[in-house]
Amino acid sequence: MAEKHPRVLILMGSDSDYEVMKGTAKVLAEFDIPFEMTVSSAHRSPERTEKIAKEAAGRGVQVIVAGAGHAAHLAGVLAATTPLPVLGVPIPSSDLSGLDSLLATVQMPGGVPVGTLGIGSAGAKNAGMFAVRMLALGDADLAQRLADKLKSMASGVEDAANRLSERLKTDFPPAL
Amino acid sequence: MAEKHPRVLILMGSDSDYEVMKGTAKVLAEFDIPFEMTVSSAHRSPERTEKIAKEAAGRGVQVIVAGAGHAAHLAGVLAATTPLPVLGVPIPSSDLSGLDSLLATVQMPGGVPVGTLGIGSAGAKNAGMFAVRMLALGDADLAQRLADKLKSMASGVEDAANRLSERLKTDFPPAL
Amino acid sequence: MAEKHPRVLILMGSDSDYEVMKGTAKVLAEFDIPFEMTVSSAHRSPERTEKIAKEAAGRGVQVIVAGAGHAAHLAGVLAATTPLPVLGVPIPSSDLSGLDSLLATVQMPGGVPVGTLGIGSAGAKNAGMFAVRMLALGDADLAQRLADKLKSMASGVEDAANRLSERLKTDFPPAL
Amino acid sequence: MAEKHPRVLILMGSDSDYEVMKGTAKVLAEFDIPFEMTVSSAHRSPERTEKIAKEAAGRGVQVIVAGAGHAAHLAGVLAATTPLPVLGVPIPSSDLSGLDSLLATVQMPGGVPVGTLGIGSAGAKNAGMFAVRMLALGDADLAQRLADKLKSMASGVEDAANRLSERLKTDFPPAL
Amino acid sequence: MAEKHPRVLILMGSDSDYEVMKGTAKVLAEFDIPFEMTVSSAHRSPERTEKIAKEAAGRGVQVIVAGAGHAAHLAGVLAATTPLPVLGVPIPSSDLSGLDSLLATVQMPGGVPVGTLGIGSAGAKNAGMFAVRMLALGDADLAQRLADKLKSMASGVEDAANRLSERLKTDFPPAL
Amino acid sequence: MAEKHPRVLILMGSDSDYEVMKGTAKVLAEFDIPFEMTVSSAHRSPERTEKIAKEAAGRGVQVIVAGAGHAAHLAGVLAATTPLPVLGVPIPSSDLSGLDSLLATVQMPGGVPVGTLGIGSAGAKNAGMFAVRMLALGDADLAQRLADKLKSMASGVEDAANRLSERLKTDFPPAL
Amino acid sequence: MAEKHPRVLILMGSDSDYEVMKGTAKVLAEFDIPFEMTVSSAHRSPERTEKIAKEAAGRGVQVIVAGAGHAAHLAGVLAATTPLPVLGVPIPSSDLSGLDSLLATVQMPGGVPVGTLGIGSAGAKNAGMFAVRMLALGDADLAQRLADKLKSMASGVEDAANRLSERLKTDFPPAL
Amino acid sequence: MAEKHPRVLILMGSDSDYEVMKGTAKVLAEFDIPFEMTVSSAHRSPERTEKIAKEAAGRGVQVIVAGAGHAAHLAGVLAATTPLPVLGVPIPSSDLSGLDSLLATVQMPGGVPVGTLGIGSAGAKNAGMFAVRMLALGDADLAQRLADKLKSMASGVEDAANRLSERLKTDFPPAL
Repeated sequence: MAEKHPRVLILMGSDSDYEVMKGTAKVLAEFDIPFEMTVSSAHRSPERTEKIAKEAAGRGVQVIVAGAGHAAHLAGVLAATTPLPVLGVPIPSSDLSGLDSLLATVQMPGGVPVGTLGIGSAGAKNAGMFAVRMLALGDADLAQRLADKLKSMASGVEDAANRLSERLKTDFPPAL
Repeated sequence: MAEKHPRVLILMGSDSDYEVMKGTAKVLAEFDIPFEMTVSSAHRSPERTEKIAKEAAGRGVQVIVAGAGHAAHLAGVLAATTPLPVLGVPIPSSDLSGLDSLLATVQMPGGVPVGTLGIGSAGAKNAGMFAVRMLALGDADLAQRLADKLKSMASGVEDAANRLSERLKTDFPPAL
Repeated sequence: MAEKHPRVLILMGSDSDYEVMKGTAKVLAEFDIPFEMTVSSAHRSPERTEKIAKEAAGRGVQVIVAGAGHAAHLAGVLAATTPLPVLGVPIPSSDLSGLDSLLATVQMPGGVPVGTLGIGSAGAKNAGMFAVRMLALGDADLAQRLADKLKSMASGVEDAANRLSERLKTDFPPAL
Repeated sequence: MAEKHPRVLILMGSDSDYEVMKGTAKVLAEFDIPFEMTVSSAHRSPERTEKIAKEAAGRGVQVIVAGAGHAAHLAGVLAATTPLPVLGVPIPSSDLSGLDSLLATVQMPGGVPVGTLGIGSAGAKNAGMFAVRMLALGDADLAQRLADKLKSMASGVEDAANRLSERLKTDFPPAL
Repeated sequence: MAEKHPRVLILMGSDSDYEVMKGTAKVLAEFDIPFEMTVSSAHRSPERTEKIAKEAAGRGVQVIVAGAGHAAHLAGVLAATTPLPVLGVPIPSSDLSGLDSLLATVQMPGGVPVGTLGIGSAGAKNAGMFAVRMLALGDADLAQRLADKLKSMASGVEDAANRLSERLKTDFPPAL
Repeated sequence: MAEKHPRVLILMGSDSDYEVMKGTAKVLAEFDIPFEMTVSSAHRSPERTEKIAKEAAGRGVQVIVAGAGHAAHLAGVLAATTPLPVLGVPIPSSDLSGLDSLLATVQMPGGVPVGTLGIGSAGAKNAGMFAVRMLALGDADLAQRLADKLKSMASGVEDAANRLSERLKTDFPPAL
Repeated sequence: MAEKHPRVLILMGSDSDYEVMKGTAKVLAEFDIPFEMTVSSAHRSPERTEKIAKEAAGRGVQVIVAGAGHAAHLAGVLAATTPLPVLGVPIPSSDLSGLDSLLATVQMPGGVPVGTLGIGSAGAKNAGMFAVRMLALGDADLAQRLADKLKSMASGVEDAANRLSERLKTDFPPAL
Repeated sequence: MAEKHPRVLILMGSDSDYEVMKGTAKVLAEFDIPFEMTVSSAHRSPERTEKIAKEAAGRGVQVIVAGAGHAAHLAGVLAATTPLPVLGVPIPSSDLSGLDSLLATVQMPGGVPVGTLGIGSAGAKNAGMFAVRMLALGDADLAQRLADKLKSMASGVEDAANRLSERLKTDFPPAL
């Protein structure tokens, strides 16, 4: 994704987080939002992380999404270094099922915010959706596609309801 | 705060949440960002909440901040109704110290994001700071003031270090 | 289950919740209580959810059972919209094993109640049993069948005790 | 409250739970629903508890509300003894802030349901509101008063919004 | 295990708990302590449970071990009915990994004690070991066998150390 | 309490635990059971703790009760050193409200049991009650006093019910 | 404490953490170990933190102790920047009683260790004690003083036992 | 690993902990630090554990690493017996995923410190890394190899970034 002008920068602490964080990328790709995605660890490569954070705004990045597990400091460290809005996705990679990464991401002290999404896949998808909502503020075309998406989610629910309706005919036949 | 053109809308589920949510307002006031602040409950006044959410974008609101306690549904319900970005502040009003409101705010299913800040006062302040970061994306003057603020936080730490230094002279005198 | 006159309405936030929520339907089917079961999300299809909730009482529904995972708002949103009693079943679909959906369902602020059952399958079954208890209040025949069921549960325990007794003969033979 | 024909029976494990459980009684009194309220412990007076549970249905009781703290077994023991619907209110009387009583109340095994409300005061109030919703099913007058109550909750939110509005004029004066 | 004179009575809430509770029986069998093991649920068969509890002391039972999952009330209900010492084993059968059954077993209100062991297999084994310690108080022969067992546990550790030592020769050869 | 022949030995990790552990002593005093109570820490005075544990059985002690906070190892260390039954009382002295001491006390690995009571005051009282139940096994007189106590608990509940009844006359007068 | 050659560097994220972190300093002062203590935040003053971390080893610092609350990143950020051993003290400054800061400090991903002590005052004291143990490895005089300290802790327990013994004479007089 | 002069002693409570604790050994082997690794349980072999702890310093051991699960007392018991610094690794061997062993290891009362690493594999690796940091304080060659390792971790992150970059070309081709 060597986009020349990425609007969203997706960072993850380890490439083992990719299966989860791909969810953010999929949403952005669906909305044709240029993004860049790479690996950098708050702990194992602090200088790389600092460099990426400091250069992001100058490269036109408007939002940073950071996914990390365990004592997830990545989003917080980025928020301490860049004035850009930073979204955090807690990855459930430790034995504590993401409770540790959630608290380490969301419980930031006053002054340095991380907009935190849910643990794991749902959170990664929602980081993409939150970025879309932000970018749609000044982009009428994107706003329209977002509105369409919201409608399609609603009709997706109706489709699911119809599928369930069929299934119920078998599981609980009318003559019950 | 009957701002004619609020850019940020702050909602809280109960006026007992005001002492916490005032922290968001203070940050916005400090940055001269027009905001509106009111009470609406996802549960006790769902129609009012829906109306406010539906009208927000048309009134020029760019971000909604929602603070709620217990099974905090307010931010999620707003995010389901408006395409605007919604920030959630979990309020520690129940016996569970905000763990319930944190999980009820942040663990949104995929598709409908709430950018969640920390529990209580730190989170309320950070909701304001996150809104400032978002709005500074397209506002060079605000971006400058945000940069100044970040610098002042760093120098505030140095001031605290100096204060501590004085205190240590008493508590642990050199001749120890 | 296109029952013309459903007495119980079972809603779930996603059709992936069906495997759990089927447990509620099975109990109702066992007691010949007409029910309707469909999918509607508090977040992805709020208007559909609102419509279903508003129409329920008029259609003769007497109890609503709502199953949802993650930040489970479905039961609470329904309880905010309909005067009918609403039962909530927390679904363990996120990484937090249902602790999030339990707290998001049960910790409702004062005024808008959700009668919450346990997490997952046991809770889904018990939502059905609670509905039966409610409906049996004014239905002597149903009350009789409920009494029979309670007796059969007790004799089921005795059967289990007998099965265990046989097994113990092998695992811990008398000559021990 | 020696009501001759109580429709709701409120039990609590200890009279120290009364300050919380009074919330249930207040709601019922507000709706003119005859209730009876007494103390009985699942552990310290099991025979009294069993007797009360067995006689309840015959006395015309339609719902039982049980509040208990610590390893709160009261609601579950009642549900095992009576076919009436049982509502549980977890009391935060131990060092664990009600997490223990919540789990001990809500996590009932399949077959014996307890409709559980939130921890403490909000839960006690909601037990009353849930009872009202149940009893309103076959009582048009009560249904009307419930509908009025729901409206008054919504207008109560508007009152709170107005009070906040006044307060904001002082805290964040227009000239901000 | 229709022992005529069981000294230990092992109860479990469901026969699905047997795989865990077998651990208690194994310890007792190893020490030649006569025991009885059966199924009875605090919720599904309260009368059977009460009968068993009331008759236990008269039959010569000296300790009762109760294993149960979810909102585990079995041990507490037994302790409320019999003056015998009751040991509780929390079974991890729900989605909450036994945290619910642990709290529902151990957090008994003052007056009615349950001596609680750990969650699952370790706890079941330890319930047996605790019973042995109790019964050894007045039984010199059993006390001797308990002392031998404690020694064999210590030598078992040395055996494990030797096995590990061998394994290390392969995994971390001396020439490292 | 320099009892010459203590039957119960109460240990606590710090004298700051005395206010809680006094509850155990009160129960034993009420039943005229000779006990000894002292301070010894698993961590700060391991040799003293070991000495006390090793000598206990020889001095006629039949049960040890250990109260400790934080990472409460005291009960486990005692159980590893003496063949006597050891009861553990988790003290809520750290910031985690006793969850740490509960888990550190109850989750013993298989082989070395600690019969654990609830956190804090209720647990301390119950440690005394459990000791009484154990000692009553071979002591008809004590068994009788235990039976009386259980009855008095039940009548205590009736007294509480009567007190509540009076109070309700004021709070919810008949003419409601 | 402007020690010219500090061997231990104590950092805290905010001067409001001083009351807790003073416990580390007291231990070091007691052992005559030169230390330096200052404020620096991982989030509000990242450059200052980085500078301090990078210069520490060159100034002769041998251990860094970092105390921080909320999503406590300070210890982890230091460990990512310096090769010195870093000890972390979780401060219970948020609504979650230090569970957040504990997990954010201890759950470091593999490669970058933080030796974590307990939450709050006990942890702060123990950070000092751990530093003493480390520094005593190559310092026979310090090792002797550490050995004396360990003995004095044991005799402190005996003093506490004696104090308790006196108190028991009043609370539980011999004639009991 | 019968090293004649081990500098690090790795203990584990059970040989089933070896798969996790091997991570500590691998790090030490990588840095050519002589270590010894064996099994000893705080509970099942307290005398063996005491003997090992008391002899460690005299044998030249400079750090002890202790891995244990459940109510993990091993590290604390060692720290109570030896003046050496003790590192603890919580093993997730119980149903509670290591939350029990974490709290039982880290929440030591003031005076007796355990430097605790994260739960499971990451923690075991980090115990090795922390030991290396400690031993490198007085060992210039080891310090150099530690510095090289830290660099290689940073370049490892860049390698991961490159691998991800390749993968993105497939998953999100440029023409998106």
